[in-house]
Amino acid sequence: MAQQVYEMTLNDFIEIAASKSHTPGGGNVSAVVATLGASMVAMVGNLTLANKKYEEHKDQAQGCVDRVMGMIAKLKDLTVKDMEAFDAYMGVFKMPKDTDEEKAARKQAMEDAAKQATLVPLEICKTCLDIVDEADALSKYGNLMAISDVGVGAMVAEAALRSCMLSVDINVPSIKDQDFVRDVLAEKARLFTQAEKLRTLAMARVIEKMGG
Amino acid sequence: MAQQVYEMTLNDFIEIAASKSHTPGGGNVSAVVATLGASMVAMVGNLTLANKKYEEHKDQAQGCVDRVMGMIAKLKDLTVKDMEAFDAYMGVFKMPKDTDEEKAARKQAMEDAAKQATLVPLEICKTCLDIVDEADALSKYGNLMAISDVGVGAMVAEAALRSCMLSVDINVPSIKDQDFVRDVLAEKARLFTQAEKLRTLAMARVIEKMGG
Repeated sequence: MAQQVYEMTLNDFIEIAASKSHTPGGGNVSAVVATLGASMVAMVGNLTLANKKYEEHKDQAQGCVDRVMGMIAKLKDLTVKDMEAFDAYMGVFKMPKDTDEEKAARKQAMEDAAKQATLVPLEICKTCLDIVDEADALSKYGNLMAISDVGVGAMVAEAALRSCMLSVDINVPSIKDQDFVRDVLAEKARLFTQAEKLRTLAMARVIEKMGG
Repeated sequence: MAQQVYEMTLNDFIEIAASKSHTPGGGNVSAVVATLGASMVAMVGNLTLANKKYEEHKDQAQGCVDRVMGMIAKLKDLTVKDMEAFDAYMGVFKMPKDTDEEKAARKQAMEDAAKQATLVPLEICKTCLDIVDEADALSKYGNLMAISDVGVGAMVAEAALRSCMLSVDINVPSIKDQDFVRDVLAEKARLFTQAEKLRTLAMARVIEKMGG
């Protein structure tokens, strides 16, 4: 199913997400939510580009659009990777554990799968921060007629970051490698702090430009 | 375009949302985001229903799923209505304003369109609160194996509420009827306060059940 996620209609995606099937689950739905936030940032970038009034910001806006479209492509890829990491993790539980060798192999596979099922959502979270970062920059010069949509992009992407981080939280306790865990938790704290700061700055500008 | 929004593939929807076309814009994208949050609440409801371990909560879970699927249907309808309200509002600006009669008719049409373009996103926001409310209830008894996805539902739906409210904020300043404006602002305050409270309660339970 993973490969064709973005080829599904919204109706079908929502139906399968709402069903008792575990995938799509919170991590990959968060990634889809993030693409929608990103699309609003790209739209305002495009509306800035298309308007002569903002000619002096044309290069900035083009750079924003190019980067955000790249983030959307990356999120699509990570959505699939997140489903695969989940399936791989579930697969490990079916590995045999009769001999000592099998037990050791299973234990190692479990550690590797838990790490992968942590790193993929963490990468989705990082991409969400990048979107909030673009929204923050665009809130300074983006087309005033659509400035509220920069706020939509910032808030939706931050929420996607926070909701996707729950997938990190689920898997971290299973990981034995404590150096790895320490790095993940430090990155989590950095992502939350930066996203909140940049979303706050973007929203303050959006609210001011909307007339307070 | 409005009628077929949910029949579009995710790829196509994201592409058109990211383009310089004003629709889909912040309000309707927020509604789509809300359906994704709702789908996670429904999934956990279904996973609770499907598991014998939660048999004592079967009726509650069935009620939750039925209501949330109804909210998704309502949001799909409101997504279309939001696009139509935006188009209708834009249409008013093209009305003639040569005679006094034309001016008066245009002024009245503008007031009506501004009200409609406020009430529709406000209704989307109310439905977002209903989703957070369902997440809060489900966080008390939902299937532990998927409890983090209740958190995803609550956070995504609250973000959709906040981002959709920007569409209310845009249109309120154009409305002359101050009684109407007062009611809208009171409802906005209620929705924000309730959603934050219920999301906080839901998230507290989710975090505790995930092991803190």
